[in-house]
Amino acid sequence: MKPVTFDSTCYRIDGQSAYFNTGEFHYFRVPKAHWRKRMRLLKDAGGNGVATYIPWLIHEPSEGRFVFDGADHLQLEEYLQTAADEGLYVVARPGPYQYSELIFEGLPRWLCEGYPEILARNLEGKVLDPSVVSYLHPVFLEKARRWFDAVCPILARYTVSRGGPIAFTQIDNEMGQHIWYGSLDYNAEAMGLGKAEGRWPSFLAARYGDLAAVNEAYATSYQAIEDVRPVPPSAATDVPALRCAKDYFDFYTATLGEYGAIMAEMMRDHGIDTPLMHNAANPSMAVYFTDMVERLSPELLLGGDHYYNLDQTWTQNNPTPQYATRCFTSCEILRMMGMPPTVLELPGGSYSDWPPVTAHDASVSYMLHLALGMKGHNYYIFTGGPNVPGTGVTTDIYDFCAGVGADGEIRPLYHAQKAFGQFIADRPWLAEAKREGDFRVAMDFDMARAYCHWHADVGLGLTGSDAWDFLHRGLLTTAMCGSLSPIFCNLGSDDWLAETDTPVAIVCSAAMSADKQRRVVQFCRRGGKVLLVPFIPSFDERYQPCTILADFLGSPKLEHDAGGLARVTIADAVNIHNGWRGAYWTTALPKAAEVIGEDENTGKPLGWRLACDGGGQVIFLGFRWLHTKIEQQQMLTNVLELLGLRRKVRCDNPNVWTSLRTAGGKSVLFLMNLLSSPMTAAVSAWPEWSEEEIDAGTHKLAPMTVKTIDLGG
Amino acid sequence: MKPVTFDSTCYRIDGQSAYFNTGEFHYFRVPKAHWRKRMRLLKDAGGNGVATYIPWLIHEPSEGRFVFDGADHLQLEEYLQTAADEGLYVVARPGPYQYSELIFEGLPRWLCEGYPEILARNLEGKVLDPSVVSYLHPVFLEKARRWFDAVCPILARYTVSRGGPIAFTQIDNEMGQHIWYGSLDYNAEAMGLGKAEGRWPSFLAARYGDLAAVNEAYATSYQAIEDVRPVPPSAATDVPALRCAKDYFDFYTATLGEYGAIMAEMMRDHGIDTPLMHNAANPSMAVYFTDMVERLSPELLLGGDHYYNLDQTWTQNNPTPQYATRCFTSCEILRMMGMPPTVLELPGGSYSDWPPVTAHDASVSYMLHLALGMKGHNYYIFTGGPNVPGTGVTTDIYDFCAGVGADGEIRPLYHAQKAFGQFIADRPWLAEAKREGDFRVAMDFDMARAYCHWHADVGLGLTGSDAWDFLHRGLLTTAMCGSLSPIFCNLGSDDWLAETDTPVAIVCSAAMSADKQRRVVQFCRRGGKVLLVPFIPSFDERYQPCTILADFLGSPKLEHDAGGLARVTIADAVNIHNGWRGAYWTTALPKAAEVIGEDENTGKPLGWRLACDGGGQVIFLGFRWLHTKIEQQQMLTNVLELLGLRRKVRCDNPNVWTSLRTAGGKSVLFLMNLLSSPMTAAVSAWPEWSEEEIDAGTHKLAPMTVKTIDLGG
Repeated sequence: MKPVTFDSTCYRIDGQSAYFNTGEFHYFRVPKAHWRKRMRLLKDAGGNGVATYIPWLIHEPSEGRFVFDGADHLQLEEYLQTAADEGLYVVARPGPYQYSELIFEGLPRWLCEGYPEILARNLEGKVLDPSVVSYLHPVFLEKARRWFDAVCPILARYTVSRGGPIAFTQIDNEMGQHIWYGSLDYNAEAMGLGKAEGRWPSFLAARYGDLAAVNEAYATSYQAIEDVRPVPPSAATDVPALRCAKDYFDFYTATLGEYGAIMAEMMRDHGIDTPLMHNAANPSMAVYFTDMVERLSPELLLGGDHYYNLDQTWTQNNPTPQYATRCFTSCEILRMMGMPPTVLELPGGSYSDWPPVTAHDASVSYMLHLALGMKGHNYYIFTGGPNVPGTGVTTDIYDFCAGVGADGEIRPLYHAQKAFGQFIADRPWLAEAKREGDFRVAMDFDMARAYCHWHADVGLGLTGSDAWDFLHRGLLTTAMCGSLSPIFCNLGSDDWLAETDTPVAIVCSAAMSADKQRRVVQFCRRGGKVLLVPFIPSFDERYQPCTILADFLGSPKLEHDAGGLARVTIADAVNIHNGWRGAYWTTALPKAAEVIGEDENTGKPLGWRLACDGGGQVIFLGFRWLHTKIEQQQMLTNVLELLGLRRKVRCDNPNVWTSLRTAGGKSVLFLMNLLSSPMTAAVSAWPEWSEEEIDAGTHKLAPMTVKTIDLGG
Repeated sequence: MKPVTFDSTCYRIDGQSAYFNTGEFHYFRVPKAHWRKRMRLLKDAGGNGVATYIPWLIHEPSEGRFVFDGADHLQLEEYLQTAADEGLYVVARPGPYQYSELIFEGLPRWLCEGYPEILARNLEGKVLDPSVVSYLHPVFLEKARRWFDAVCPILARYTVSRGGPIAFTQIDNEMGQHIWYGSLDYNAEAMGLGKAEGRWPSFLAARYGDLAAVNEAYATSYQAIEDVRPVPPSAATDVPALRCAKDYFDFYTATLGEYGAIMAEMMRDHGIDTPLMHNAANPSMAVYFTDMVERLSPELLLGGDHYYNLDQTWTQNNPTPQYATRCFTSCEILRMMGMPPTVLELPGGSYSDWPPVTAHDASVSYMLHLALGMKGHNYYIFTGGPNVPGTGVTTDIYDFCAGVGADGEIRPLYHAQKAFGQFIADRPWLAEAKREGDFRVAMDFDMARAYCHWHADVGLGLTGSDAWDFLHRGLLTTAMCGSLSPIFCNLGSDDWLAETDTPVAIVCSAAMSADKQRRVVQFCRRGGKVLLVPFIPSFDERYQPCTILADFLGSPKLEHDAGGLARVTIADAVNIHNGWRGAYWTTALPKAAEVIGEDENTGKPLGWRLACDGGGQVIFLGFRWLHTKIEQQQMLTNVLELLGLRRKVRCDNPNVWTSLRTAGGKSVLFLMNLLSSPMTAAVSAWPEWSEEEIDAGTHKLAPMTVKTIDLGG
C-alpha cells in the first residue's frame, strides 16, 4: 500500500492530499468470520483504514508467555493481512496502555498486582488506582520493553514500507491518566523525588542552574536540590508556590515526552518505520504533549479525543455550541503543533445507552468538526463484539452502540457515517481546504497550560485559568455568535508576523513570556493591528516581573472593579452587560491613548486605542466578559472594524454559527445550528477567490443540524 | 373578584378548581400607557393574574421618605386598579427583597450602605456581599417594618376580600440567598452566636436539653452553651462535626421560618388577608422552607423557580431530561408540603440573549411541567420595560427577551405562551388532574436536606448527598427511561400506609430517623411491598445508632465494593453496568432472605427478597447505579414486578419519557422528547378509568418537543 504522510495542511497518500477516515475495529472483539464483511462496510462508508488496540493483557496472559495464535481473538497477523487484502490501512496501537473498557486498562493483571512499586502515587504517597502506573518506573519500562520485544517485530513486518497495511503506530493511549484521579504522578522512584540524580532535581538544576536560584524562586531554604518538595496545583496559593507548581507541571509533561520518546525508540529498534501517533484524551489536553511533539516531530501525529457525552456525568447530552468551541480550539492547537487536525476518537457510539448518542447528534458532531477544520478522524468504535472472557470492565458484549453492532447489525449511526463519508468523497478538495479567517486569535501555549496549575488569585492579576475560560466563553463565543471567522496563530512562533493586515486578538493573563511580549511589540512596530484583552501582562511565564509589552504601551495602570454595577460602553456599543464584574479600569492612561470605552457607572476608562510608530495599532479592552448579550457582539465587531476587519461571513442569526472552508476556487459554507430549536438565517460569504460578497440566501435549519452551501468551483 | 384558595390538589377560584396562570409584569418598568394593552395580551394568552415586585428601593429613596405617586413608575395603586379593571388577579411582592436584577437586590442603597451591621457574614466574619443581609438582624427588621408600615396598608385596601385584585401577597423573595455566596449566615448579632440568650444557643438548648448533651454529641468540652461554635458543611468531616453542621443547617432554616413568620405577622397586622406566597429559588430549595411552611400552613403557598438556562454558567442550554427530573422532584415535594405544584418563575425569557431561551425550548419546559403535575405558574417575565434610572444591574432596558418586549413588540415566545394557555383552557379538568402512578418513591425530607450538609464520607456508610444524587441520576432516570410512573409519598407522614398494593421504593442513605424506620416496618407488617435501595440505614437523623429497620430485616451486614470490576446480575437482568462501583454486598444475609442479585465477579449477594409476616415483602438492592444502560431499566422493572407492579404506561423508546394525567374519566398522555434528535415511540396507557390497556399508537416526535394524546372523555 502507498505511504501516508502528513503536515499541518493535510494527510497525503502517495503524495496526494487525502482525508484520513478510519474506524476502530478490534480483532479481539469482532468475530473473525465478520472481519471482511465489516471492513467492507467501513469502506462503503468512506473509510480508508481501521484502528485497533493490541492488548498486552490478552497477548501476555502470564509473565513471559506471549500468545499470538490459537483462538480467533489472538490472531493479530490474520487481522493485519485481512485489512491489507481489503485495501485498508491499519493504525496499530500496541500500548502499553489501551483503556477501551478493559480491566487494568489493558495492562496484564500480573503486572499491576505483582509489581505494585510501578504504580503512580499522589504527593501523600497514596496509590491513585491499581491500574495507573508511573510511566518511567524502571520496572514498568522493562516489562513494557519485553512486551514490545514480542509485539513490535510482528508489526514491523506489516508496515506499509514492507507491503503491509500499517500506516501509523500509536504510542500508548491517552497519556496523562493520572489527572483523571485528581493528581499528577509523584512516584518517588520514577520521578526521582528525594534522589540526588533523580529526574525532578535534574529538571530543577537544568531550569535554574543552582539551588540558590531555586530557593529564591520558591522562597524556600532547602539544603539540597533533591529535597525540593513539589507543590500540587491546589496548593499554589502564593507566587513562590505557584512557581513550583508550574515547574512540576512542566516537569510532568516533560516526563510524558521522555516516556513517549522511549517507547518510540523501542518501536524503531524493532523496525517499525511508520509515522507514530498519539491521542490526547480530551479537547484541552493536546498542550500536555508539547514536549513529546518537540522530541518526535515530524514523525509524530498527535490527535485528540472529542466526545460530547459518554454518561450522565457529562455536562451536555449532545454536540452543543460550547462543545464546538472546545473542539475548535483543539483542532487549531493541533494545527499549530504541525498536525492535520485529527479526532482520533470521534463519537461512534458510547459505552452508555443513555443519554443516547444518536445518529442525528453524532452526525452533527462530525459535520461541525469538518466545518472547523478536521482533516482526519477515527470513529470510536466502528464496530464491536464480545469481550474476551474476564477482560471487560463494563459488559460482556462490547457493543458501544456502534454503527455496526456486535452481531453485525446495521444501525442508523452507520448510515450517518456513510453520508459523512460521501460528503467528503464528493469534495476531495476539502482534504487540503483551509478554514478562511477574518481575524486571528494569538494562542499562548503557556496560558493553555496554565489552566492546569494557575487557578488561585495570587495577587498578580488575571490568572491563566480565568484567561483561558474567557477565551472560550467570552471572546470565541462572541466571535462565533457574531459570524466572525477566527483563526489561531501561535504567539510562540514568528510565522504570523508578516501578515499585518488581519487583526490579531491576544487574550492575556497577568503573565506572558518575555519573548512573546517582544513579539507582540515587534508586530505592532511592523504595522500590525492588535486587540489586547482583557488584561496587560506584567510578569513572565515564571511569574517574575516583565513589563516589555506594558512599557511599549506607555505603562498603563489597571484596577479591577471587584464590586459595583456592571455595565460598560465600548466602541459605540452601549449598555454592555458585565455579568462577571470583569472590568479592569485603566487608572493611568498612556499619554497617546484615545479612550474608546468606559464603565457606565464610574466613567472610568477601560478601553483605549493607541497608534504605534510604523502604522501599527493597539486596542486594549480591560473587559473580561461572559458572552450573554447581543451588545457584546456589536462591541467585538466594532473594535475589530477599527482594526481593519474585512468579514468573511455575515449571518443575521447569532444562534447559527458559520465556517467557510476553501481550496482552489471552491468553498463550502457551513451553517451550524447546535441548539434544540429550529432556526432561520440569512447568510453571505466572501471567499478569497471571489471578487465580491456572495449572497448565500436564507436558510431554515432544523434543531441540531449542520447545513452546507457549496460555493464556486 | 372571587377568592383564590388552594390545597395540594389544585387552586380554586370561588371554590371551583382552576389553573392559576400569571405573568410577571412590573408597573415600575412597563410604561403606564401600555398597562392595559399588555394586560389584555396576557389574558389572551390564558393569564388570570399578574405578579409584580414592589421595590423598596424605589418607594423609599431616602430613609423615611416614602413615595407612591408622581412619576408613572411609582403608581402602584393605579396599577392595582388597572389590573382589577381588567379582571386580573395580582400577586403582590413587597419584599423586603426583590432581586429582579435591581441594585442591592431591591433594597434601598441607604439601608445597605448606612447600616453595615445588618449584613450577613460567613463564619470568619466576612461580609458575603454588600446586598446580602441577615434577615433577623433587629435593625433590618425595624427598617423592614417601617417599609411595611408604608406599603402594606396600600395593599390591604386592594385585597380580594375588599373588592381588589390582590389574591396573594408574597413574603420576601428567594430566601436563603446566603448560599449563593457559598455560606450560611453567621451574623453574630442576629444568629445569637456567643450570646447567652441568643438564637443559636437557644436552639441547641431546645434540641439537646443541656450543654452536657451537646458536648457529648459534638465530642467537645464547651463550658457554656453560647460558646458552641457552628461547623460549616465543608468542615463536616467526622461524625461529631457532621452533627453540628446539620444542627446549624436546621437552625438556619428555622431562622428562615422565623423571618417568614415575622413578615407574615406584619402583613396581617396591616390587614392583608390574602393567602401568602413564597418562592424557593431553584428546584432543590423547597426543603429549606419546611419550618416556614409548618409555621404558616395552610396560609402559605410555596412555589419554586425552575429555570433551565440563564447564562453560560448553567450546565444545559435547554430543557433536558435531567432538568425534567429535577423539576419533577420539586413539584412532588411541593405537593407533599400541601401545595398545588406551582412554578413561580417559569422561564419567560432570560437576562441573557445567549444561550437563547427560544419559544421552542420554553414551550417544551411549559409542557413538561404540565406533564409532571404543575397546577399553576408565573412567567418570569411576561413583559418588560426600561429600568428606573440608576436601579438596573444588567441593562437600562429590562427586556429579558420576554414574550412581550420592552416596546410592546410581540415575539414568538408570546405565541408559545398563548398556545400553552389554550391547551389548558381546552382541558379545564387538568386543573385538578392527578398524575397517575404505578409505583411510589418514598421521600425522606431529611435526606433531601442532608444534601446541604452531608457530603463527606464520615464512616457511617452512604452519605445523604450521594443518596440524593442516586435518587435523581439513578432511580428516577431509570424509571423515566423505562416508562414507569413514579409518584412521591412522604416518609415522614402516615398518609401512604393504607395503600399496600402499589410498591414503594425507598432510597436510603446510612441515616433515617427512628419514626421513619418504624413507619417502614409498620408498612411491611401491614402487607406493603417495599424496595429498599441502595443502602440500609443504621443511624438516625442525628447520626446516632438506630437499627429499627435493619433489626426488622434480620440484621444484614453490608460491605462496599470499593474497587474491583463492575457488573452485576439482578432479578434476571444480567451484565448490568456498575459504572460508579456502587455495589454493596450483603456479607451476612438475613436468614429468610432469598438472593435475587449478585456481583458477577465475586458472586457475592447484593440483592435479596424477604417475605414479612402480614403479607408484606421487602426487596433490598445493594446497588447504587448511575443510569447508563438498558439493563438497568430491565432490572428495575423486574424488581418492581416482583413487588406487584401494574404499569400505567408502556413506551418502547427509553428516550421518550411519558406521563399520564387523569381526572374524571379523562386523561392526557404526555410524550416528551427532551433530546435534540427526532424520536419514534409506540405507546400504550392504562388509565384508572379504563377497563383495559389502550394502544395509543406510534408517534414521531421532532427534537425537543412534547406531544400529547387525549384519552377518554
